[in-house]
Amino acid sequence: MAETSGRLSGPVEIVGTGLIGTSIALACRRAGLEVLLTDTDPDHVRTASGLGAGRPRTPDDVPQLVVVAVPPDALGAAITATLDAAGPDTVVTDVGSVKAAPLAAVAGHPAVSRYVGSHPMAGTEHSGPLSASAALFDGRPWAVTPGPEATPAAARLVEALVVLCGAVPVPLSPAEHDRAVARTSHVPHLMASLVAGTLAGASADHLALSGTGVRDVTRVAGGDPRLYSQIIGGNAGAVAALLTEVRQRLDLAIEAVSGDDRAGLESLLAYGQAGTRAIPGKHGTAPQPMEAVRVSVPDHPGELARLFADAGASGVNIEDVRIDHDPGRPVGLVELDVVAARAEELRVALESNGWTTHR
Amino acid sequence: MAETSGRLSGPVEIVGTGLIGTSIALACRRAGLEVLLTDTDPDHVRTASGLGAGRPRTPDDVPQLVVVAVPPDALGAAITATLDAAGPDTVVTDVGSVKAAPLAAVAGHPAVSRYVGSHPMAGTEHSGPLSASAALFDGRPWAVTPGPEATPAAARLVEALVVLCGAVPVPLSPAEHDRAVARTSHVPHLMASLVAGTLAGASADHLALSGTGVRDVTRVAGGDPRLYSQIIGGNAGAVAALLTEVRQRLDLAIEAVSGDDRAGLESLLAYGQAGTRAIPGKHGTAPQPMEAVRVSVPDHPGELARLFADAGASGVNIEDVRIDHDPGRPVGLVELDVVAARAEELRVALESNGWTTHR
Repeated sequence: MAETSGRLSGPVEIVGTGLIGTSIALACRRAGLEVLLTDTDPDHVRTASGLGAGRPRTPDDVPQLVVVAVPPDALGAAITATLDAAGPDTVVTDVGSVKAAPLAAVAGHPAVSRYVGSHPMAGTEHSGPLSASAALFDGRPWAVTPGPEATPAAARLVEALVVLCGAVPVPLSPAEHDRAVARTSHVPHLMASLVAGTLAGASADHLALSGTGVRDVTRVAGGDPRLYSQIIGGNAGAVAALLTEVRQRLDLAIEAVSGDDRAGLESLLAYGQAGTRAIPGKHGTAPQPMEAVRVSVPDHPGELARLFADAGASGVNIEDVRIDHDPGRPVGLVELDVVAARAEELRVALESNGWTTHR
Repeated sequence: MAETSGRLSGPVEIVGTGLIGTSIALACRRAGLEVLLTDTDPDHVRTASGLGAGRPRTPDDVPQLVVVAVPPDALGAAITATLDAAGPDTVVTDVGSVKAAPLAAVAGHPAVSRYVGSHPMAGTEHSGPLSASAALFDGRPWAVTPGPEATPAAARLVEALVVLCGAVPVPLSPAEHDRAVARTSHVPHLMASLVAGTLAGASADHLALSGTGVRDVTRVAGGDPRLYSQIIGGNAGAVAALLTEVRQRLDLAIEAVSGDDRAGLESLLAYGQAGTRAIPGKHGTAPQPMEAVRVSVPDHPGELARLFADAGASGVNIEDVRIDHDPGRPVGLVELDVVAARAEELRVALESNGWTTHR
């Protein structure tokens, strides 16, 4: 491959103008790059183009970088076809949720040194170009996973795309990436789904006792079963290995509960508590001890705004928010997560504005 | 037991002036009832009394209702002692997280007809009287679980307490309650803990790819291991039975993933999705289709307040909020859950105020 400066100057070709592809296209247009659009469905190209995401690719175009953003099961073939057709300096990346399988699909390809897979940790349960946004990737992690044959220049170009889209490049090998997302995404999703499955068909009486905990645990299980079966199924090796580990822990839990082994149960729960503290904090800093400030908020329009205005005036930064809904009175419990050292300060400030807080 | 009107007129005695006991006391004082305080620790009584929760009980006092609010492992003995000492018209309840075991502890007691267990679905990771609040139970479900010997009048009095505390009485048998909370609280907590356990000791590279999903799934696992081992261990029968069911589903999941059975995997995920839709919606109504409106919010003080002020002005009610933090740019993604039919209205309103939303 000819020497390049590593600077992303365009044109960038997007293959697959769905949610992710069109969002990348919009981010590139936002930065002033020329964007070429390709899709098996000409209507999608027309729609994306109409949104300002670029123009249809013509045979004479020579992209600097091609982003393959097709559905999981079509990925290997689409990357291969793109490498087949690519010019001698064109770099190719993809944005699929697993990285080892696409790399294996192009192993031995003469142009494999110009392929660097990647994976933006972003997206919604929506799909299609109409759901796209140039800001979809702002502040998100975006894994960059060069295989052993990839040139450093190709990897740098893909990282440049990541930065242009406002995301944070996270370099990983393809296999490491797949193990990572098994742990941080696929297995949590599956386990949430198994727990949620115990609720389907439960009696209304039982479900009446639902609180914040079960809502949090099962929320992600609301996602599209077809899409996630493709994603999780495409990472079968890493997922199966980790599920087997979880099953061993589940066996220990069943033993501890059935055998009235309180110490064993406490030990399992303590390990889980340690795990929650391992998740990175805001902006990649070490996790800080957080505390939830609980406030009763009447369910009238404007009350949440008033709460946040008062909280904002206190100067204490709100890291996260949860609103709990339960049958009965139209009063919700809002939980504001703040750095523990400032929790009392926020409570006092809110109480001075007439809010009811709970210690 | 003498005929009673069923009206809760007091005095109410609180045995155990911790978080829950003191909060009930404060709610009763808020309603103008006389409250008597008992605790093995005289300092706790002094503190609760100083907070306005009541006065120390004297030997001449005759409570109308006694609420036993001691830690799980002391519960059976405390209810027995209370029934031993109670006058002929005094009704006794408790607020423990499991109901069959306390009832079994008082089986055959001459005064058992005046005991009606209950369980408020409320509370925080804090403990002790200083964390108490009269509003802790506002809008929460509160199970009322009379055993077969309890008189209807005793059950009505306990329900009156529930209503006075601002909560919603949910009548259930003790065994049904224990099965319900196994499903809606204990098993989700345990499973969250097992997933979180896979994160403890994971490399920082892996954890860098964490998103909203894993945070939601594992959040509840941050709770105190000692307390939850008592609670979950105290409901061993119902929990073990449900865990065994989950283990069977986990086996099916491992089989489907390892065997590349996409249809089987999709079917498991679909069952989970159905489960998320079974959880009751706001104020006990049927769940409405919700949609998340996503907004990029710069991480400056006041920005959240500005967002909520603009959202409030739109007239679209915000049902839930999530704030996603990821390494990199100081821009957070805020997700506002609204009724699906009004999601677009909110987006348009926010965009007209300069916010960046994502479809």
